[in-house]
Amino acid sequence: MPTLLHHPLDPSTRMVRLMLAEYGVPVDLEEIKPWLREPDFLDINPAASVPVLIEEEAVAAVGLLATIFTIEERYAPSTVAGLIPTVGSERAEMWRLFEWVNGKFNDEVTRYVIEEKIAKRDQRGATPDTGVLRAAKANLQEHLLYFAWLFASRRWLAGDEMSLADFALAAHISTLDYIGDIDWEAAGEMRDWYSRIKSRPAFRTLLNDRVIALPPHAGYADLDF
Amino acid sequence: MPTLLHHPLDPSTRMVRLMLAEYGVPVDLEEIKPWLREPDFLDINPAASVPVLIEEEAVAAVGLLATIFTIEERYAPSTVAGLIPTVGSERAEMWRLFEWVNGKFNDEVTRYVIEEKIAKRDQRGATPDTGVLRAAKANLQEHLLYFAWLFASRRWLAGDEMSLADFALAAHISTLDYIGDIDWEAAGEMRDWYSRIKSRPAFRTLLNDRVIALPPHAGYADLDF
Repeated sequence: MPTLLHHPLDPSTRMVRLMLAEYGVPVDLEEIKPWLREPDFLDINPAASVPVLIEEEAVAAVGLLATIFTIEERYAPSTVAGLIPTVGSERAEMWRLFEWVNGKFNDEVTRYVIEEKIAKRDQRGATPDTGVLRAAKANLQEHLLYFAWLFASRRWLAGDEMSLADFALAAHISTLDYIGDIDWEAAGEMRDWYSRIKSRPAFRTLLNDRVIALPPHAGYADLDF
Repeated sequence: MPTLLHHPLDPSTRMVRLMLAEYGVPVDLEEIKPWLREPDFLDINPAASVPVLIEEEAVAAVGLLATIFTIEERYAPSTVAGLIPTVGSERAEMWRLFEWVNGKFNDEVTRYVIEEKIAKRDQRGATPDTGVLRAAKANLQEHLLYFAWLFASRRWLAGDEMSLADFALAAHISTLDYIGDIDWEAAGEMRDWYSRIKSRPAFRTLLNDRVIALPPHAGYADLDF
């Protein structure tokens, strides 16, 4: 069974867990706090980031791209049923939004929230910077407007079929929702989409996540939120 | 002929240009200053980033991942001669370093340099923030040590064959070299690697780049630098 080095609230590893669950691949989870930069972990990934996927008799897949391509190549049931669209134009749109979520959205929203609200819990005496959190919240509203606009004309993030882009966004949104940062009353068309993806069997593993001394926001695990 | 929306000193578009040249694909270049966020450009890419690859009778490929996969699928001469390794473990290592360069290295070095030294030239009265540039320079030294350490035991960035990871790093290094930010005396094993990749025919297009009122650093276009 492969081992995934992860953190329960890290969006990249949440995305990988969704992917593994969707493809029916059991996995051993090993929790890492990447921000502690522990020497044993830096030996495995000097970039100090998760995910890292370790399989017996194979070189570890280190980082998000290496991990998702390893999973796609080994475990995707078939191209048709997989998470990467087979039509070229749909695939390009999927990569555009995958990059939007893991690049722009992460840079402008999620990584600030994780740094201030999660990582700083492990620094004695550190407190969240409210100025940074206010900026992240303003950025989040802009992004949610854009996603809602997309969902007004398509069923899934990159088109009419569910794809890796949906898992990427669902991973980030679920991290923010755990912490209570999503205002579902104002989320518009995005709420329907999240309700649909949250109801998938693959999502169950994420809904059971609990971080010590940081309980999830009310409604986090409810399918009718 | 496809059209590439680019900026001469944007590392992601430099990487795409290297890839197109390596595959022998002629391209029309159209210069964009993404930081100006011009409405016509935002209509094409609301993320306000390059590259964007536009081909007749096809949906535009927007962003780095969409563009490189589109090029790889349409123009790679064959899997064997392509830039994505065919062996799984080598491919995982390639994606690890691709992500390192376009994620971590960009976040910690290149994007600060571009913001302070290039984008601010278009803001009346703005001057580079020397504190930011000092931090970027310190980060650059750490990264160069890591790359030199890798090159001490391998010919190319991700292994014994040239790959997309080399083009990613060469694109970033060449942007920094244009501006004069690379100290080649201190670059160790990396200098040999850069000399080799700079001598490739695909590199010529980048060496002819000139930005108005910002001439390249001495040695930028020299193969014997």
